[in-house]
Amino acid sequence: MDRDDIKFWSTISNRIMEEANEVVKPLVGNPKSDKIVKMGADGTPTKFIDLVAEEKVIEILEESKRPVTLISEEIGEFKIGKGPSEAVFVVDPLDGTRNAIKNIPAYGISIAVADPMGASKLVTDPSKLIISDVEVGFVKNFATGDIYSAKKGNGAFLNGIPIKPSQKTDVSGSSIGAYIYRAEMSKIDKLLKTVRSMRILGSVAIELCYVADGTYDAFLDIRGNLRIVDISAAKLIIEESKGIVTDENCQSLESGLNVLDRTSIIASCNKSIHKEIIEILGGI
Amino acid sequence: MDRDDIKFWSTISNRIMEEANEVVKPLVGNPKSDKIVKMGADGTPTKFIDLVAEEKVIEILEESKRPVTLISEEIGEFKIGKGPSEAVFVVDPLDGTRNAIKNIPAYGISIAVADPMGASKLVTDPSKLIISDVEVGFVKNFATGDIYSAKKGNGAFLNGIPIKPSQKTDVSGSSIGAYIYRAEMSKIDKLLKTVRSMRILGSVAIELCYVADGTYDAFLDIRGNLRIVDISAAKLIIEESKGIVTDENCQSLESGLNVLDRTSIIASCNKSIHKEIIEILGGI
Repeated sequence: MDRDDIKFWSTISNRIMEEANEVVKPLVGNPKSDKIVKMGADGTPTKFIDLVAEEKVIEILEESKRPVTLISEEIGEFKIGKGPSEAVFVVDPLDGTRNAIKNIPAYGISIAVADPMGASKLVTDPSKLIISDVEVGFVKNFATGDIYSAKKGNGAFLNGIPIKPSQKTDVSGSSIGAYIYRAEMSKIDKLLKTVRSMRILGSVAIELCYVADGTYDAFLDIRGNLRIVDISAAKLIIEESKGIVTDENCQSLESGLNVLDRTSIIASCNKSIHKEIIEILGGI
Repeated sequence: MDRDDIKFWSTISNRIMEEANEVVKPLVGNPKSDKIVKMGADGTPTKFIDLVAEEKVIEILEESKRPVTLISEEIGEFKIGKGPSEAVFVVDPLDGTRNAIKNIPAYGISIAVADPMGASKLVTDPSKLIISDVEVGFVKNFATGDIYSAKKGNGAFLNGIPIKPSQKTDVSGSSIGAYIYRAEMSKIDKLLKTVRSMRILGSVAIELCYVADGTYDAFLDIRGNLRIVDISAAKLIIEESKGIVTDENCQSLESGLNVLDRTSIIASCNKSIHKEIIEILGGI
């Protein structure tokens, strides 16, 4: 995508973030929002509040009047407009659904935009795109209004202000986000005894961005069950902030941009902590 | 305390919540707030933002022009005014300090007010008061503005609206708050594999109140290290909502109202889940 395209799709993304927030707001803490309305394309149930958010995303992409492919949790892969897609939107319309339903203040939207020809400009089949093809990423916490953003090669931002990860170098002094319930305890036990503090807020997209701006020193979910739509934008935001993102074996993420691929993730403020975490987890 | 006293001290509590919020606000997310300024009376370091909040609490209690004892994390037991205390304020001026410093939206104040003669009206030494002597409790989340409150025998409220716990009856479908890092994993492993979802927001006072209004089905911290100032108000709020609060052995909490006593806590929406959690933890 050229500069004008990036600008155009960023404007569309900003509209989506604003208007999805508006339709979600009256449903926050509302028992109605919890109703299961169908099974999502990713194989998990779609709640009413998820559907309302996704419908707003579709509506705004349709209004863009340009052909685009949407990859979203509930609808799966969805082509909008005629002709070859000019952009691929990988969206979690509402990350942290349970929080929104219960009014726990960490829920929002994740939007990643990829070039349909891939970063290499050589992809002929958009379904072959992978997570590193994402060129623009946005994560908005609807509860606080905070917006994290990044464009490839241009750094990462919180509400327009450049951000960077923490400079912590030891796991024993670190504050991490870690999804560990229903995980293999034998893997995670030593880490839980080492860290200084731990959080589980319930929105992976937002908590990954917390690594980009130094709120967390690291974040991990090694249960192998994370959806790509949840992490596509935040991965770019962390990397643009100069933080580190890999899977639990310290390999770069190569997941496809679709609703079925699942992964583990470890994100850290720097290589030193990243290496120590992987060692403590018993990895390479 | 009679009705007029309760009304008077509730008004003072409301002023404290409002004005402590005002002095904390400009320090949220500000690195300055993280500076250690002294050792607190509870044996943990006092950060600048904690001190600012506590000083505001003291200022407003002094302005009440009535003799009162403050029991607070940083200052310990502190007598204000002349003559026998008419109320004992058990306060955590800023619960969730690390969140406030990092701008994670779960931090606030906990205020519990006890009659210096105890619930039995037979206590002659205020230092003999225990947690069940608390008659009024307030917890405010500064990040969202939400206020949980209870007066003994009068139910529990969120922003003035009556609240009740969830009606969930099985742990396998439950959403819980659980502080488990640096805990004995052998104790907690089975529970972590059983629950549906888990949160660690980083403010015990707020998360205990989440049991009172059904946001969580249960909350637990069985590391034996919880401060009484953190839980005094929320315990009353949960019990007034008809939720259950005990220690990990299913015994009622009898901790003294001071900054040195420490405890474990298990709070649940009802007896059914409470019993199951204690069984899963391997208790009685």
